[in-house]
Amino acid sequence: MAKEQIPYKIYLSENEIPTSWYNLRADMKNKPAPLLNPGTLQPMTAKELEGVFCEELVKQELDNDTRFVDIPKEICDFYKMYRPSPTVRAYCLEKELGTPAHIYYKFEGNNTSGSHKLNSAIAQAYYAKKQGLKGVTTETGAGQWGTALSMSCAYFKLDCRVYMVKISYEQKPGRKEVMRTYGASIVPSPSNTTEVGKRILQAFPNTNGSLGCAISEAVEYATTHEGYRYVLGSVLNQVLLHQSIIGLEAKAALDKYGVKPDIIIGCAGGGSNLGGLIAPFMGEKLRGENDYRIIAVEPASCPSFTRGKFAYDFCDTGYVCPLAKMYTLGSQFMPSPNHAGGLRFHGMSSILSQLYHDGYMEATSVEQTKVFEAAELFARTEGILPAPESSHAIRVALDEALKCKETGEEKTILFGLTGTGYFDLKAYEQFNNGTMTDYIPTDKDIEEALSKLPKV
Amino acid sequence: MAKEQIPYKIYLSENEIPTSWYNLRADMKNKPAPLLNPGTLQPMTAKELEGVFCEELVKQELDNDTRFVDIPKEICDFYKMYRPSPTVRAYCLEKELGTPAHIYYKFEGNNTSGSHKLNSAIAQAYYAKKQGLKGVTTETGAGQWGTALSMSCAYFKLDCRVYMVKISYEQKPGRKEVMRTYGASIVPSPSNTTEVGKRILQAFPNTNGSLGCAISEAVEYATTHEGYRYVLGSVLNQVLLHQSIIGLEAKAALDKYGVKPDIIIGCAGGGSNLGGLIAPFMGEKLRGENDYRIIAVEPASCPSFTRGKFAYDFCDTGYVCPLAKMYTLGSQFMPSPNHAGGLRFHGMSSILSQLYHDGYMEATSVEQTKVFEAAELFARTEGILPAPESSHAIRVALDEALKCKETGEEKTILFGLTGTGYFDLKAYEQFNNGTMTDYIPTDKDIEEALSKLPKV
Repeated sequence: MAKEQIPYKIYLSENEIPTSWYNLRADMKNKPAPLLNPGTLQPMTAKELEGVFCEELVKQELDNDTRFVDIPKEICDFYKMYRPSPTVRAYCLEKELGTPAHIYYKFEGNNTSGSHKLNSAIAQAYYAKKQGLKGVTTETGAGQWGTALSMSCAYFKLDCRVYMVKISYEQKPGRKEVMRTYGASIVPSPSNTTEVGKRILQAFPNTNGSLGCAISEAVEYATTHEGYRYVLGSVLNQVLLHQSIIGLEAKAALDKYGVKPDIIIGCAGGGSNLGGLIAPFMGEKLRGENDYRIIAVEPASCPSFTRGKFAYDFCDTGYVCPLAKMYTLGSQFMPSPNHAGGLRFHGMSSILSQLYHDGYMEATSVEQTKVFEAAELFARTEGILPAPESSHAIRVALDEALKCKETGEEKTILFGLTGTGYFDLKAYEQFNNGTMTDYIPTDKDIEEALSKLPKV
Repeated sequence: MAKEQIPYKIYLSENEIPTSWYNLRADMKNKPAPLLNPGTLQPMTAKELEGVFCEELVKQELDNDTRFVDIPKEICDFYKMYRPSPTVRAYCLEKELGTPAHIYYKFEGNNTSGSHKLNSAIAQAYYAKKQGLKGVTTETGAGQWGTALSMSCAYFKLDCRVYMVKISYEQKPGRKEVMRTYGASIVPSPSNTTEVGKRILQAFPNTNGSLGCAISEAVEYATTHEGYRYVLGSVLNQVLLHQSIIGLEAKAALDKYGVKPDIIIGCAGGGSNLGGLIAPFMGEKLRGENDYRIIAVEPASCPSFTRGKFAYDFCDTGYVCPLAKMYTLGSQFMPSPNHAGGLRFHGMSSILSQLYHDGYMEATSVEQTKVFEAAELFARTEGILPAPESSHAIRVALDEALKCKETGEEKTILFGLTGTGYFDLKAYEQFNNGTMTDYIPTDKDIEEALSKLPKV
């Protein structure tokens, strides 16, 4: 019998959208290491974490056992506004490449935040509202997370305070206006609104700011103001839990047509998208039910997996956040400002770090000019202008598809297209003008940053 | 039996996407008046039009009789990359307003051009390719049409030359980079690349440019260069034909759930989105099968329907284009630069003009601060940052829904959400800062522009 023609875009119906998140930790033999208190270097207790995060989110953060977590109805309703996201068969790209490979991508960019970040933002805002909080604080770099959180807080009528890395604040006025339209307060970081901000400004008056520093400020504000908590868009276990909806939907869509991916590819900064995309596939792999090749792609300018160390480190520059055991380049590592996209975080999700350490996935790094070549080809053939972050995954998907062209293998590739590049046009301009350059840190750069790791 | 719950987003399946466009003219008793040759003032022959437009598109332009036109397979395939677009039930907005009205919107913004413009751009590029042309020229203001055409030309590997209104070229560098990424050449207009551009620059060296002037340049370039034709994103009959896919999909989606709209609302600049959205509904109205209230919404700053004259006029400022019989403010009318969005064209589609003249639809105009208030509310409740153009329709949809709240009527409202506002954040910034103002031309302004109408 002829197989049913696979459509360009596979949409689940509304009642097929998952109503539980999948907690990958339940299937890990080696659980991710616990967060440590930055003062005592002892594992953070729930009570300590509740000073920073919402109670329900702390439970999720610490829960290594519950396999499926029900998604509250209010979040399901919000998901229905912009989900299911399509699982797309890249017919046009396959044709352009002349590859026998079948390429699929899960596209998370069709919402105003422009990325997958909304999946966790709405969950975190919901739990803050449920706890009766006034508001939440966070940091944002490229601005996708800040936008997602602003949208979520507007929906639940919560106050939203975003510390935005100063250079992004200045270079991305558009992102700032989207957040303001959703009613958020945006503070360029470092700022005079926190003690840690003041200290950094005093030491480095002309600093452009950094994600690590903005995190420190957001945490300080939340922990020193009644009715506020801090929320984070990546790295944390809870975030990967929420993002599992990406992979659950993708797997359900492929299962409908009997498609099993051979290779699954995602870009990796802090790990939120990658962890979400691979979750159900990795679960099968951990349980020995199925095998998949899983590839994390990171920028050559910020190569935590491929050149970092698996060790306890601070999540922020200002040493106010808990320590996580992860692949890290050191919290004082500063990626070159010539790097265009996000994925600039020095560390990596503890879950993914453990899985990589245990050999369940591969990692590779790519240079940004090659990334933008892939982005351009993808835009012209698939009609979507991709985010620079997502384009890291596109690059490796193209490379794998081209290998198939050489060998004649009909492999099935799935990659995560996390978002759109509408707010990254300065980077595209550099690429279009031929002025984009690559940057790879020297061994000395990395050794120096790693030498400052805390002694745990 | 309980009615089936209507989902948040109604998606047709891929094989339900229409494979024919609907030609509304076939059901009009009074056909739209023919285009006139600007030199002889006689109806343009097919041969004359073929100097400017592609042959197949000329056929479509002149065909007042064929009810359904098959969509070529190549275009259907491209449509599958970004269509069907969702028909959305605005549950969250209804709840926020507390209205008994049921509100639906057809959302055309989920593609990289950010609007419905891609529906016609891909068709026009296809016919140009089929005719063996080298490339096409066009003008763009806000940039949605130029982006859509750039994407379409990249797909069919055609040269694309876009004359971009100078002020937009300078204020919207992002849009320009998207088009460049798709390989298009962007020329700020007026320019020294055409005779008409040189004349305008000589007379007004500091001009910001205008859509009418950019049209003149694009037409001149196409008609003086071998292998080029000119394409236009609105106003023309052929464009409304292609855009009928919006209405056909919306009607099919609503029919699935037995929903019949009472009121259909669309923003109107040149008429491409409105004409497309209302097409199948207006067809039923013209054939006496069903009645609908149909409302065109235009900006108070450029009110062609509500304050213009139904007369023959030039479509461009430079008097090189054919004349169309339409509601017009006069081709020399310049909308105030303080107006934020698109919808700045002095004229209106001949089809819609005739229908309005014959009493089949209403028109209303709205001021931009009220439009942005509606945009903000919509963004916060429905999670989509709307284009300023689309927000004109949102404004009137909100007003109608609020009337229902007063009267208790459970009316069904359908409006066109033509696109997203990601490249309109300067306007949102003005609104967020409270510095946005309104502009309404005086009667004298309009009389003066109308006094220059050609004597036909």
